[in-house]
Amino acid sequence: MTDRIREFLDTRHTEGPCLVVDLDVVRSNYLAFANALPDTRVFYAVKANPAPQVLSLLAQLGSCFDTASVPEIDMVLAAGATPDRISFGNTIKKERDIERAWMMGVTLFAFDSEAELLKIARSAPGSKVFCRILFDCEGAEWPLSRKFGCVPEMAVDLLEKAQRLGLKPHGVSFHVGSQQRNPQVYDRALTLVAGIFRDLAERGITLKMVNLGGGFPARYLKDIPAVQTYGEAISTSLRKHFGNDLPETIIEPGRGMVGNAGMLQAEVVLISRKAEDEAVRWVYLDIGKFGGLAETMDEAIRYPIHTSRDHDEKAACILAGPTCDSADVLYEKEPYFLPLSLEIGDKVLIEATGAYTTTYSAVAFNGFAPLQAFFI
Amino acid sequence: MTDRIREFLDTRHTEGPCLVVDLDVVRSNYLAFANALPDTRVFYAVKANPAPQVLSLLAQLGSCFDTASVPEIDMVLAAGATPDRISFGNTIKKERDIERAWMMGVTLFAFDSEAELLKIARSAPGSKVFCRILFDCEGAEWPLSRKFGCVPEMAVDLLEKAQRLGLKPHGVSFHVGSQQRNPQVYDRALTLVAGIFRDLAERGITLKMVNLGGGFPARYLKDIPAVQTYGEAISTSLRKHFGNDLPETIIEPGRGMVGNAGMLQAEVVLISRKAEDEAVRWVYLDIGKFGGLAETMDEAIRYPIHTSRDHDEKAACILAGPTCDSADVLYEKEPYFLPLSLEIGDKVLIEATGAYTTTYSAVAFNGFAPLQAFFI
Repeated sequence: MTDRIREFLDTRHTEGPCLVVDLDVVRSNYLAFANALPDTRVFYAVKANPAPQVLSLLAQLGSCFDTASVPEIDMVLAAGATPDRISFGNTIKKERDIERAWMMGVTLFAFDSEAELLKIARSAPGSKVFCRILFDCEGAEWPLSRKFGCVPEMAVDLLEKAQRLGLKPHGVSFHVGSQQRNPQVYDRALTLVAGIFRDLAERGITLKMVNLGGGFPARYLKDIPAVQTYGEAISTSLRKHFGNDLPETIIEPGRGMVGNAGMLQAEVVLISRKAEDEAVRWVYLDIGKFGGLAETMDEAIRYPIHTSRDHDEKAACILAGPTCDSADVLYEKEPYFLPLSLEIGDKVLIEATGAYTTTYSAVAFNGFAPLQAFFI
Repeated sequence: MTDRIREFLDTRHTEGPCLVVDLDVVRSNYLAFANALPDTRVFYAVKANPAPQVLSLLAQLGSCFDTASVPEIDMVLAAGATPDRISFGNTIKKERDIERAWMMGVTLFAFDSEAELLKIARSAPGSKVFCRILFDCEGAEWPLSRKFGCVPEMAVDLLEKAQRLGLKPHGVSFHVGSQQRNPQVYDRALTLVAGIFRDLAERGITLKMVNLGGGFPARYLKDIPAVQTYGEAISTSLRKHFGNDLPETIIEPGRGMVGNAGMLQAEVVLISRKAEDEAVRWVYLDIGKFGGLAETMDEAIRYPIHTSRDHDEKAACILAGPTCDSADVLYEKEPYFLPLSLEIGDKVLIEATGAYTTTYSAVAFNGFAPLQAFFI
């Protein structure tokens, strides 16, 4: 909780849950990444929080941007970044969207399949492409499915093919899984990447770039290593695998850039028990899975929650959202401990909610408005 | 697929996924419920699809409405229904929202806890209240959690207390689980309800109403019993438990009213394999979990999908959405069979998508616009 957020919330008296993002925290996160990895370019993962205020600040600080769609590219350009600072990082793109991006000046594209490579060759000729490889994200709190990436052998063949198609085979990307708390995991991924660089060198192709992806954690309930620790682990691993012939590197922090900059204020709507003798209370808030806290799916992300009664005795609660959907339960398998003195109408503060909240919010489920957000 | 939807889609050439709802189907669903349960009032569950066109049609047909929030009440009134046809059916309400509803003329409220009952007594004095009981929804495809309802013993105590608080103890509600395919399940619930009626009669209180809830299925891939079959099972069970002294009954269909009225058109964005020798293709559509198909969560709802190549040989696919979120996978545990000849750019039709799609859609995740919908 920063002083600026506290002051804002103290003077705000409008209705409904709201997120407040402290842009000073975003700034200091950007500088921490830049300092920890001075030779690495930062491509902010726009999807984490695409608010114009966040994008403008990062554009001013010199950040580059990882985008998932044409509307995100529009927003980044509107924030003042030039197209050479934009990566179209989604491996699943409509061909007409690739063409639109290229017409807007974007020349860096991700792919993980032959079909996508062919689309890029047709609609963004001459562009730089990087291939995303599958990577097992052990250690991540929000591990990724096999949705993105291909096996390294396929990456080698496709990058070679990229050159035949008139594209620039630029590099390789991977993703260590979101909220990855183990900095050592990069070494295993870089072993695979270095192998791809070598295989292609044997075929006469010199790759230039390693995209280290995102996955940098925000601090929720458990402590996380400092960005500096990640920087050191990555640098050590890069030197081990590439010696003095270091490739360009980029990172794509999203959660790590904005997660801890946001604080969400919600209200306790109801506290009840299902039977007189039931030990565990149900606590219902005016925000839930459909109002912005979608990352509580499978209880994956466990947010720190503060109340004004935290000095009182705490007991286990099942925490749920306000909608008529029975799936709108935040924490049940592992109950959440909240003060026994908590009352209906109390405000609660949900920490580290700057990433993956506003845009995940449902349009109007149950008639509830999407999450309001303020950037200060 | 109705002729009207086919004609609309044949002439539509705008960008992105879209839902088309045939209001004639909604009309015939309403009439089927009214005919199957002639002595039961229909309270349409607005959350399933709150489009003004749907609400106006149902208001004209004489439907009542089950609402989850003040904005939903606003929409129902705007559609031409009077407040005496509205139930505020969410058991989790802010006290100021109860007051707002009461000021708008709503006098029928759900509750499942003492705290909620006290709010209603203070802010909607003299209103009719019904208590929701917990019920184990065996047989439902989207079973409910314990989020709503209390044990029957507590319901008896709270309904008695309602009278002491100056409210009208009106009845009992339960929910058999969404997409409930077993009509016999109502008998088990009505056994509990009849017990509550008897217990309260012994305390001098005569309840008037049984709210049979929703849960009526839409036809996805598996056959479902006709509405008439549900009507007969419910009538038989009511006579068994209440004899000639039948209570008023209401039902709250949502999915059963609009599910099969909607057809969603999407586009194949990418078809790929993760390795040369991998048998299962990945098929990526321009709609996924965050664009309106949230009910594919845990692969709960399995929509029928049609292509123009359905006469060709089919093979297993993993089906996923277009966002950079690795959780945006629709069917993977149980792969979906689609034609081997399917191509990027093909349109696919996703059937029975009239319920729980438009309003579930994320505001702008990954920069993608919310689901467009047309009502014809």
